[in-house]
Amino acid sequence: MKPTCIAMITDFGLDDPYVSIMKGIITSITPEIPLIDITHQIPLGDIQRGAFVLWQASRDFPKGTIFLCVVDPGVGTGRKAVYLKSRDQIFIGPDNGLFSYMLYNSDFSCWELSNPDFQRSNSSKTFHGRDIFAPAAAFAAGSVTGDQFGSHLNNLNKLPQPALIINENLLKGEIISRDHFGNLFTSLGAFEYKNNNLQFRSWIDGSELFINDASQLRIEVNEQQLPFVQTFSSIDPDSCAGLIGSTGLLEIAANQSSAKALLGLEKDDPVILSWD
Amino acid sequence: MKPTCIAMITDFGLDDPYVSIMKGIITSITPEIPLIDITHQIPLGDIQRGAFVLWQASRDFPKGTIFLCVVDPGVGTGRKAVYLKSRDQIFIGPDNGLFSYMLYNSDFSCWELSNPDFQRSNSSKTFHGRDIFAPAAAFAAGSVTGDQFGSHLNNLNKLPQPALIINENLLKGEIISRDHFGNLFTSLGAFEYKNNNLQFRSWIDGSELFINDASQLRIEVNEQQLPFVQTFSSIDPDSCAGLIGSTGLLEIAANQSSAKALLGLEKDDPVILSWD
Amino acid sequence: MKPTCIAMITDFGLDDPYVSIMKGIITSITPEIPLIDITHQIPLGDIQRGAFVLWQASRDFPKGTIFLCVVDPGVGTGRKAVYLKSRDQIFIGPDNGLFSYMLYNSDFSCWELSNPDFQRSNSSKTFHGRDIFAPAAAFAAGSVTGDQFGSHLNNLNKLPQPALIINENLLKGEIISRDHFGNLFTSLGAFEYKNNNLQFRSWIDGSELFINDASQLRIEVNEQQLPFVQTFSSIDPDSCAGLIGSTGLLEIAANQSSAKALLGLEKDDPVILSWD
Repeated sequence: MKPTCIAMITDFGLDDPYVSIMKGIITSITPEIPLIDITHQIPLGDIQRGAFVLWQASRDFPKGTIFLCVVDPGVGTGRKAVYLKSRDQIFIGPDNGLFSYMLYNSDFSCWELSNPDFQRSNSSKTFHGRDIFAPAAAFAAGSVTGDQFGSHLNNLNKLPQPALIINENLLKGEIISRDHFGNLFTSLGAFEYKNNNLQFRSWIDGSELFINDASQLRIEVNEQQLPFVQTFSSIDPDSCAGLIGSTGLLEIAANQSSAKALLGLEKDDPVILSWD
Repeated sequence: MKPTCIAMITDFGLDDPYVSIMKGIITSITPEIPLIDITHQIPLGDIQRGAFVLWQASRDFPKGTIFLCVVDPGVGTGRKAVYLKSRDQIFIGPDNGLFSYMLYNSDFSCWELSNPDFQRSNSSKTFHGRDIFAPAAAFAAGSVTGDQFGSHLNNLNKLPQPALIINENLLKGEIISRDHFGNLFTSLGAFEYKNNNLQFRSWIDGSELFINDASQLRIEVNEQQLPFVQTFSSIDPDSCAGLIGSTGLLEIAANQSSAKALLGLEKDDPVILSWD
Repeated sequence: MKPTCIAMITDFGLDDPYVSIMKGIITSITPEIPLIDITHQIPLGDIQRGAFVLWQASRDFPKGTIFLCVVDPGVGTGRKAVYLKSRDQIFIGPDNGLFSYMLYNSDFSCWELSNPDFQRSNSSKTFHGRDIFAPAAAFAAGSVTGDQFGSHLNNLNKLPQPALIINENLLKGEIISRDHFGNLFTSLGAFEYKNNNLQFRSWIDGSELFINDASQLRIEVNEQQLPFVQTFSSIDPDSCAGLIGSTGLLEIAANQSSAKALLGLEKDDPVILSWD
């Protein structure tokens, strides 16, 4: 696997030098690897949000990407630091559930980051991004392998699985995240258009379903019925609708305003998609 | 034209992985091209703000820059996706007015981005940044030409032209944007110092004027008179003044505080610059 | 000294194209040098905050880093523009105190940036980031030396020195900054663990002290006693404690919440660390 870039996701924000310090260290170890910021605005310690954004991003990043993931409220405790290989991509970060979603439907191999040769000497108890994870990403980009980092692991910590119940003519799920536009991501998907029909293949367990004529779909959230549309601009002003977003998940969206604000929906609120 | 960098401007914000996904795609197509973020904080769907920031930036970017511009409220509708060449720079984005300001005083050639060879197969209706514009920028950096992307276009959609009326001893214009310091940009300019005199050359139509002795300039906004100064630090605390900013436009500014907040001015408010 | 990267710190924010314009200019002069953002969110004109973040970052950046520092409320006035060499790193920015902290315990040499060959012709009075500092960083990365930029300087402007008083069994200092997590940085440090003991070496003047058994340390802020811990996760929910952060300074922190908000502490508030 040829390394193509290091893609970073953290909750470090943009006010402090923490992210840049990690980049400086990478540059001193493997100067030629391109560095890409996914986001550093994961809410403080919000592992579930980190897991979702990582799932969103990893599907569209090229083979050879090394994901450097530091949402790590347990830094300095016994939680393991890991190196994970899946779908020709590498994932580096704490074993706290951050990799839960991107591992759905995927084979993987995993190793512990324990070899001190690839860590800062005299590592701190408060900034493993600098002392363990950034060096690991840089050395991985320089072709250090899982076996060199540490011993093989068989299990990873996982977040609870989002609801996704498949009935005849009905999918039941929940709100799992949102974006800065106020679009709400549901656990219902992934969908792909086949002309005006929809091919469903569960992003969680791969089970499949075929829905004829997407235009007849109905969405129910919070005791409200919403129409199903194909583009943001076909949603009526100040109202909301469902559409298949760029991830293939059903999203609840508005037209140049925030569906989250208009509907007052929160994470975990139930969503039903039905058809005849 | 040798490509020097890809410069990105979007309204995608920094919380979500959208910008990084575009960068991942570019890196997989043309890995060696430097990527520069202009801003991703254009207010949601604010084409006029996008057009202004693009004008600000493009004047100071080097030849060979490929601008990747995605402020695209009409994504998925019939609005065209375009490739534009002007002043030894390339501009890629939706044909919705985003290029209005940077085309003032400039020749250009324009093509439609329609060749599916340079797009993601099975393009979504909600994320052309990923499916059409990022690949186009990457292929442009790899020397794909306008003719290869699609057919030549003769017209582009334009925003209304900002007010800029030239009378004897008087320029009338309006507030057209602001920056995060709270400095207000007016449509009056561009100016260049010639010792203590000012050479005016309209940023919109190129018409020219020479003003002797800049120190005698008077500014009127909102029935208030403001002095004209040369540096931020020569403005009195908690008051405002006009000065020639780094773009050459007349700006209304304060000294380490926000002129926008102090004066309560909004976009489109009138501004008059006069002299004897 | 081989240049490794240009690391940027400004108060320009992320809404405007100012940072990108500096990067475009650097790319046109020295295209191959990696560019790293430290932060652009220094509060407007807050030189002390800039000095602190620069100190934090510079300790962990590799040799050969060129720091491009633009927190410059005096732009256009008589304040000097400088090139500074210290600890195999280069620092470029205004002589307004921004380099105060990173010069503690360090030898340095300094030159004025006055040679017009390495500046934009017809430099503005409002954006030296574009006209003077970015070109200087790019030329420094291309191996232009201090002597080529201008004449040698013997003195730099300095901020007031933070309080750090060393008594027997007692250190007195103050809050000097915070991060986006709400952790508060004190002037007490730097500390390094030697097993369970702490080696103190003043970050300001290098004076040394050895503290046996860190677990007996007591912290007093605002008439409150706080415990001393080693990791964020060992702090009780909704309470605060002191710990040695990744810089080696004593930090006042909370567990997944903001110590700043919980304690209502501000910059300059006194902090006492004592032991038996």
